[in-house]
Amino acid sequence: MIIDVHGHYTTAPRGLMAYRGAQISQMGNPTKGRLSVTDDEIRESIEQGQLTLQRERGTDVVLFSPIAGAMGHHFGNALVSRYWTETCNELIHRACQLFPDNFIGVCQLPQSPGVSPANCVQELERCVNEFGFVACNLNPDPAGGYWTDPPLTDRYWYPLYEKMVELDVPAMVHVSASCNPNFQYTGAHYINGDTTVFMQCIDNPQLFKDFPTLRFVIPHAGGAVPFHWGRYRGLAMARGLPELKESLLNNIFFDTCVYYQLGMELLLKTVGIENAIFASEMIGAVRDKDPETGRYFDDTKAYVDAIEWLTEADREKLFERNARKVYPRLDRVLAARATA
Amino acid sequence: MIIDVHGHYTTAPRGLMAYRGAQISQMGNPTKGRLSVTDDEIRESIEQGQLTLQRERGTDVVLFSPIAGAMGHHFGNALVSRYWTETCNELIHRACQLFPDNFIGVCQLPQSPGVSPANCVQELERCVNEFGFVACNLNPDPAGGYWTDPPLTDRYWYPLYEKMVELDVPAMVHVSASCNPNFQYTGAHYINGDTTVFMQCIDNPQLFKDFPTLRFVIPHAGGAVPFHWGRYRGLAMARGLPELKESLLNNIFFDTCVYYQLGMELLLKTVGIENAIFASEMIGAVRDKDPETGRYFDDTKAYVDAIEWLTEADREKLFERNARKVYPRLDRVLAARATA
Repeated sequence: MIIDVHGHYTTAPRGLMAYRGAQISQMGNPTKGRLSVTDDEIRESIEQGQLTLQRERGTDVVLFSPIAGAMGHHFGNALVSRYWTETCNELIHRACQLFPDNFIGVCQLPQSPGVSPANCVQELERCVNEFGFVACNLNPDPAGGYWTDPPLTDRYWYPLYEKMVELDVPAMVHVSASCNPNFQYTGAHYINGDTTVFMQCIDNPQLFKDFPTLRFVIPHAGGAVPFHWGRYRGLAMARGLPELKESLLNNIFFDTCVYYQLGMELLLKTVGIENAIFASEMIGAVRDKDPETGRYFDDTKAYVDAIEWLTEADREKLFERNARKVYPRLDRVLAARATA
Repeated sequence: MIIDVHGHYTTAPRGLMAYRGAQISQMGNPTKGRLSVTDDEIRESIEQGQLTLQRERGTDVVLFSPIAGAMGHHFGNALVSRYWTETCNELIHRACQLFPDNFIGVCQLPQSPGVSPANCVQELERCVNEFGFVACNLNPDPAGGYWTDPPLTDRYWYPLYEKMVELDVPAMVHVSASCNPNFQYTGAHYINGDTTVFMQCIDNPQLFKDFPTLRFVIPHAGGAVPFHWGRYRGLAMARGLPELKESLLNNIFFDTCVYYQLGMELLLKTVGIENAIFASEMIGAVRDKDPETGRYFDDTKAYVDAIEWLTEADREKLFERNARKVYPRLDRVLAARATA
């Protein structure tokens, strides 16, 4: 089985953005309102987009979440963020119900800059307990490129972590759009966010002592981290930490969203097969085909397939077993399905 | 000859930081004052620090600049930044005069958030014309982790670029310390700065059309860029740019400050020998020895030496010829020296 843990509903019907647009004129008095998207529109958008590519590439199940770049936690107040988040998650739930074999939900959180993450607990519970979602996306920078909230290792975030641990769901650490003209979002802000949070964990390893079962999945293959592995090992050593594999890699995992053969090989050799989880971020940041290979840049399975030194056991871990280990609720869904 | 284009005077005598400390009580009425550091102190700090390691590693010449993490452009007003910058550059000049065979100067610029980079022109001219410096360090985020100034591709920066082009000096694009608790400086802010600026250039390729001879050296092996090369190629393609090697790599070069064998190999294979320039950032971010190899993490020459597929011509480019091409004033100094 091939599981892709990083898929966003980037082809959502335009009713979703119409809902979002209407929020701009309601900033003073937000109302939940109602999303105008039909089941047929959902079916069509999925069939023609995501699912076509999944079939072409042989992906069985995608962990499906709202559009990362559209989470936009910086926009409006906490109530605007809550209504938008609820609406996005409800849409994901509908898509997962329409295509239960192909998609399993991951939720957005109703974050807002300066608002306690305790505010996210209720929506996380709803998505996990009522919708059967198996993880959340956690934005380390709700300010959208201005980074005004505390680091993810700060106790500020602990109320959310307590609930994550209780529910046994991991978080993919994923920023959203950038309001800062310095940071293009998919090429700078996303990658910087990944690098930043890994370094936060080196600087504050207490987090995983306080929450030994908390799990972060760092997307985009960990940003710059695997490439600069010696730098991070050295910085950890200077802080008296044991090797990263001992100190952080029980809690931190990397997805395989690196659109480059040499990068994929470096990733897997560096963090090790145990800590890499197959993902494509499809349909996402890069949508063209590489003229050098004729394949989509984000066809990450092709890069993995091309690596000759991977054993069958390695591939099974990458494509299935690691995801089932890091996302136990996913494992339970798949196990129940197998015996059904 | 082995040239290292990335060395900061991180072992400067403590008089330098005493000068800096005194600026805190002068923020309302800054005065230039005077740096209390003797030639003997400079000699001692260099002999015992930088020069010992240079000799051990076989580096002939280092491009030497003020401590990057201490540029601190965010601190105080434009006059505070100017006095501090002048003082740091004067100290570098003295060190270069005391060890003319080993060091050639690169200047800090008197940047301040929100202050036009035109303000840097005079100090750049002084350092190049009076001190014989061959390049500058340009901070893309004078706000120290809050990124409040325009992207480096904005016309805001053009007055500085006009002078750089006129003087024929490149800039190493290098952030300074971070005031933002989210960004540890050597492991997150530095690497993010590198990644961010490369993406700015993809988004605004007009910069190098307006200044065809402008040259940026991106340190720390380009941050995350080489590792995610397919992502950047795809993002460039989506903007209608030709391949990065044609569209950006006439103007952008990468130093070799990646402290990891696999990273070094990926860097050189990816950006190509023509666009990589040897550097170590020594004595810098990572000061320990790797317990796995027994060598210093930042002994970047060892990683290059270990790559078997490099030809002698490749090594000559990496260690000497590329630096002399990208830093023409360095070439002139070395040429004059050879015939003296």
